[in-house]
Amino acid sequence: MSDLILALDFGGTKLSAATTTVAELASTAPNWRDLRRHFSAPDADAHYELQEMMALSMAQLAEEIPAAVGVSFGGPLDFDSGTVRLSHHVSGWENTPLRDIIHDKFGAPALVDNDANAAALGEHRFGAGRGYDDLMYVTVSTGVGGGWVLNGRLWRGHESMAGEIGHTVVDPGGPFCLCGKRGCVERLASGRYMAQDLAVAWRTRPSEVGQRIVEAGETITGETVSRAAAAGDETASGILERGAWALGVGIGNAANLVGPQLVLLGGGVTRSGKRWWSTVRRVARETALPEVQFEIIPAALGDDAPLWGAAALALSAVR
Amino acid sequence: MSDLILALDFGGTKLSAATTTVAELASTAPNWRDLRRHFSAPDADAHYELQEMMALSMAQLAEEIPAAVGVSFGGPLDFDSGTVRLSHHVSGWENTPLRDIIHDKFGAPALVDNDANAAALGEHRFGAGRGYDDLMYVTVSTGVGGGWVLNGRLWRGHESMAGEIGHTVVDPGGPFCLCGKRGCVERLASGRYMAQDLAVAWRTRPSEVGQRIVEAGETITGETVSRAAAAGDETASGILERGAWALGVGIGNAANLVGPQLVLLGGGVTRSGKRWWSTVRRVARETALPEVQFEIIPAALGDDAPLWGAAALALSAVR
Repeated sequence: MSDLILALDFGGTKLSAATTTVAELASTAPNWRDLRRHFSAPDADAHYELQEMMALSMAQLAEEIPAAVGVSFGGPLDFDSGTVRLSHHVSGWENTPLRDIIHDKFGAPALVDNDANAAALGEHRFGAGRGYDDLMYVTVSTGVGGGWVLNGRLWRGHESMAGEIGHTVVDPGGPFCLCGKRGCVERLASGRYMAQDLAVAWRTRPSEVGQRIVEAGETITGETVSRAAAAGDETASGILERGAWALGVGIGNAANLVGPQLVLLGGGVTRSGKRWWSTVRRVARETALPEVQFEIIPAALGDDAPLWGAAALALSAVR
Repeated sequence: MSDLILALDFGGTKLSAATTTVAELASTAPNWRDLRRHFSAPDADAHYELQEMMALSMAQLAEEIPAAVGVSFGGPLDFDSGTVRLSHHVSGWENTPLRDIIHDKFGAPALVDNDANAAALGEHRFGAGRGYDDLMYVTVSTGVGGGWVLNGRLWRGHESMAGEIGHTVVDPGGPFCLCGKRGCVERLASGRYMAQDLAVAWRTRPSEVGQRIVEAGETITGETVSRAAAAGDETASGILERGAWALGVGIGNAANLVGPQLVLLGGGVTRSGKRWWSTVRRVARETALPEVQFEIIPAALGDDAPLWGAAALALSAVR
């Protein structure tokens, strides 16, 4: 019986495949035996991504058949049927029975989940959430997504739609989000929207910092917002502070509703510095009732959290 | 071995004790064998309430020893230790080890939970939530509280604090709540606060309906708000509509976060008519992402939901 675990992450712009073993994953600081990545071409479609992922995997597996395969996918899917609903980045994924495809290709049991759930599980099993039975993982990146571990297991909700903290409303008078609502956490706290708001503000009221960046022809991203704020740009500081406030309200509301012990924050925006963290923590604390106790700490596995989660999914398919 | 189940509800202003049997609870439409109530005196304390509850129980039990006792308590408590934190209505309850007291008094295993959790469990087992594994129960009454059933079991959260939908923020620019925050669901949607807002509004701009009610010396309650709205009072309609909106946002946010199949609404404010229900449903639907599917329906057990929940708790202590 094979001891080999294959973990796959369809990350939207990046494909990752890694191998390890059941025994290695049981150790205190597990490592990959091998890990390979591929950056998707801009015109990639589902067929292309599946082929590339097979190539990344086969290069590691050689002739071995894995004991199980775990898959993280960057988009909504239905866990029970293992079917991708769609990808927000890559065409052709609509209604793809990904679990069955993976099962057939590798001749091994497979489990698939979305990237936020996979990351939550990865952090729970191998990262900053070890030893906690009940936690919320939130990624604050281009968008804002989340996943729950309750009673030591992923909580997926009806039709696998739980964890959408990014689309909870915290300011009904706020700006419109693509989802159609005003003042979602994602609209205020995500890197993409903060960058958009900064670009618009700089167009009408350019600061010194802003002018330098715009004249250098730099694309304004979430990272630009953090950097400009750190350089003293007041507009950027205000946008970042508002984002931290929105996330804090969203986390406080979630804590009141569900009562996790631990909230883990991952994603690029969490590298925005002490002031951002302090605002998120203060506002979440003020929003939650005094009796609702929880900690907010950084996630530990970075961009590889979904891949580690995929490994954890594979483990549960073995057992 | 006794087949007898004792269910107790410390309701804040009302004590209820009921008996039934394990066999009866397994039937499709279970009934109480006996049910007795006592309205607490205004100066009641914990000691008095415990004595009265014993009297209500003993009158039913005679010499029988129950197989188990389930208890619903109207205030926060810690499920794991079975200890009441406090009562918002009755003094002397602070840090009372209620589960152990009940266990000692009746010589039977006992389980205690707060009224919102008990009501959620009652509706799940014996009411409108039968057949659903994942649901949120929300009581919209003097206050706004809630409870979760996930995977067919009560989800209590860290230190039993889950379900506090009443203190999630939906309008950060809204009026201040006693909890210190602005624009909580409870501040906008609860009977007590809506009544307070109506009384204040009528003081400065009395309507014809309002004048009649004020002159009759009537105490303005949540029920007054519904009645005045139904009678065409625009101020009351506005307050009720805002309450329905706030509850709808709160439910939509909770659905995005947790993904229940079903949301059950109980409590006096839910008798405010079709327009109230339609606003709650519409706003919750608009707040949730399109893929997040759930129904919002009336709870079925009315004020007895916590007592039925207490019976369900007792059942789980028997098995």
